[in-house]
Amino acid sequence: MREMVFEILTPREIEAKSMETITKELGGRTWPEPEFSIVKRCIHTSADFDYADNLCFSEDAAKIGVEALKNGADIVTDTKMAAAGINKNKLTSLGGEVHCYISDPDVVEEAKSRGCTRSTVCMERGAKLGKPTIFVIGNAPTALIELHRLINEEGLRPALIVGVPVGFVNVVESKELIMTDDMPYIVAKGRKGGSNIGAAIINAMLYTMGR
Amino acid sequence: MREMVFEILTPREIEAKSMETITKELGGRTWPEPEFSIVKRCIHTSADFDYADNLCFSEDAAKIGVEALKNGADIVTDTKMAAAGINKNKLTSLGGEVHCYISDPDVVEEAKSRGCTRSTVCMERGAKLGKPTIFVIGNAPTALIELHRLINEEGLRPALIVGVPVGFVNVVESKELIMTDDMPYIVAKGRKGGSNIGAAIINAMLYTMGR
Repeated sequence: MREMVFEILTPREIEAKSMETITKELGGRTWPEPEFSIVKRCIHTSADFDYADNLCFSEDAAKIGVEALKNGADIVTDTKMAAAGINKNKLTSLGGEVHCYISDPDVVEEAKSRGCTRSTVCMERGAKLGKPTIFVIGNAPTALIELHRLINEEGLRPALIVGVPVGFVNVVESKELIMTDDMPYIVAKGRKGGSNIGAAIINAMLYTMGR
Repeated sequence: MREMVFEILTPREIEAKSMETITKELGGRTWPEPEFSIVKRCIHTSADFDYADNLCFSEDAAKIGVEALKNGADIVTDTKMAAAGINKNKLTSLGGEVHCYISDPDVVEEAKSRGCTRSTVCMERGAKLGKPTIFVIGNAPTALIELHRLINEEGLRPALIVGVPVGFVNVVESKELIMTDDMPYIVAKGRKGGSNIGAAIINAMLYTMGR
């Protein structure tokens, strides 16, 4: 049995030390809060410093997101992984709830009969919640494209759009598109993103209010 | 409303096109199957080509993993996000099940009273399943360290270890440690990894058996 010496730290200490390392390796680059916390948590969840370059915030987007969460905003997401990764204890304590309709049988059915993606149908459902809602897109460019349509054609006013789909087809373009809308957004420009990044962004905002 | 032209493709077509792009950008680099499918799916889920360099496979690890899944192996993971991301329809059809004990109240309690991490307790529970088991570690180095102990001190024989914790403290070292054990492993060397990568590796193996 190979022996190695590991530092024995509590999860809280590990996180603090990780954030310290990230801050150090950012070499003096800094952001106003709560943006800085979001940048650091995205790097923390991926060990990928590209997020220091690709995260884009519309004016006061992170502050707006924190306020919305504080006031009990719900979250609609296109992936079960993002839904699983968001800190529900904290969210629930603020009055918010996570909705992910992607595998609901009636959503699957409706998408099939209309010939659109399930994510498109999910966004439509999310748009009908009737309360302030943060949309977290970790997978489907079609979700962002549908949000763009809902904003421009049906008057949807998301509390915040977290636009971090990942991939190689329509992903870059869908992010560019949503940034043309005059709505609060946090977007990871380019191909990168994912459910883990979506959840990290929400959790970073939640944790500004304590753990 | 800004208009952009998007290719309208089915999810299956999007995936095929993405895999084509990834293959092309790998510039001729190739792996035997099913390793190649795993490398491509990790890049697909992260848009991060580093996975072409950091994924390490013990001899025949991917083949061993596919066989284990085919024979109904269970999966134990340290994160709910990985559990959420694994294709349960496919897994269940083969007789397998995903277990994630991380938030079970008795696990939380036991970890607290013993002064260890919840992931450590999870691995101990997973070791007692009494059937072939694939361990998928997407977050906690302590889970890999505990697996190493279970293998060397308690005779645990995992069907496969997917060692892809992400982060800045003990992560690199825990991966190096698990690779010293004579067990089948798929490890993302270095800091990178995550629940999304863990789920992608399992799904890539599942999809070699069709969708």
